[in-house]
Amino acid sequence: MTHVLDDLYALVASRIGADPETSYTAKLFKRGRPKIAQKFGEEAVETIIAALAESPEAVIGESADLLYHLTVLWAECGVKPDQVWAELAKRQGVSGLEEKKARTQK
Amino acid sequence: MTHVLDDLYALVASRIGADPETSYTAKLFKRGRPKIAQKFGEEAVETIIAALAESPEAVIGESADLLYHLTVLWAECGVKPDQVWAELAKRQGVSGLEEKKARTQK
Amino acid sequence: MTHVLDDLYALVASRIGADPETSYTAKLFKRGRPKIAQKFGEEAVETIIAALAESPEAVIGESADLLYHLTVLWAECGVKPDQVWAELAKRQGVSGLEEKKARTQK
Amino acid sequence: MTHVLDDLYALVASRIGADPETSYTAKLFKRGRPKIAQKFGEEAVETIIAALAESPEAVIGESADLLYHLTVLWAECGVKPDQVWAELAKRQGVSGLEEKKARTQK
Repeated sequence: MTHVLDDLYALVASRIGADPETSYTAKLFKRGRPKIAQKFGEEAVETIIAALAESPEAVIGESADLLYHLTVLWAECGVKPDQVWAELAKRQGVSGLEEKKARTQK
Repeated sequence: MTHVLDDLYALVASRIGADPETSYTAKLFKRGRPKIAQKFGEEAVETIIAALAESPEAVIGESADLLYHLTVLWAECGVKPDQVWAELAKRQGVSGLEEKKARTQK
Repeated sequence: MTHVLDDLYALVASRIGADPETSYTAKLFKRGRPKIAQKFGEEAVETIIAALAESPEAVIGESADLLYHLTVLWAECGVKPDQVWAELAKRQGVSGLEEKKARTQK
Repeated sequence: MTHVLDDLYALVASRIGADPETSYTAKLFKRGRPKIAQKFGEEAVETIIAALAESPEAVIGESADLLYHLTVLWAECGVKPDQVWAELAKRQGVSGLEEKKARTQK
């Protein structure tokens, strides 16, 4: 079973070049990369506000908005989710070692 | 097999209350929510810059930084990844229907 | 003659507690600090986009939006423009000395 | 007497093309527009955090950092402060009328 973020990316990427009137995603691609980056940035701001001044429920909702716009930005930039997962896996490996080392050296 | 983001969250959440000298994550939790939100926001800014002025590789690297800090923020706020995945799945369902409707109504 | 930013702050501060239906500023104060901070953050994102992907004219427009929302945030937080000008003047003094020192030491 | 922001802009603009080792500002110009925009964005994030989770003093300090980086961004984009002041003055005029109208119509 694939992860919801991979499913979301596949759905989002399928909208590239689609009629802007058929979906919000197709409209975003039509408006171009600066507008996609702007929307992503606005959702990041809203996630910060939710974390500092609202509720866990608000953080969930804003995080979902943020991740949706992040997958649109990835598709726009030609980035595949697997590339980001690989980068995260690589860092966890390194970080795991570093953290272990930090613990044993104390 | 679990998804790398779920693995990352589990690792991150295990650092809550750990000695700040053993890991960067434990240090972040010690510094508190405003600092975690700040770091998350800075990575969002860097993701925007990478998308508009750098390379797909830079977008991958900054996205990994962003997602790491997002999982720290979730753990800090008591949000579980499953709650965000459920929210995204719910929206994809609705959005799928809406987009289909938009297409058939044209 | 006072500076336009000081005039703007005076105008903005006069809207605190005013009927939200009489002005956008009064409405912002009514919605509260998190919403004001969010709007400020969104304008900062738009200023970045304008600088990296649009025109000097767009930077001017977004900077004006940003500064307007910054004065609203100052009024909301009980910060006076003179306090920010004093901070900037203090730093210019220090920075001037530091920069001179850096030059003469080379 | 000129305003501190105009003085700051003049100082900042004088660093364009200067040896990056003589000042932080000259170094920023050397690193280029994306880096300047990034620093500006990070200060905007810190201003939000200061407003929502810290103190009026923190808002003053972060606002000074923000405005300094904004003047660097203006100089980088070929924007003059007078253009931003003119835009703000124009809007205050319109807004003043609109707000008055809103009040008298109630």
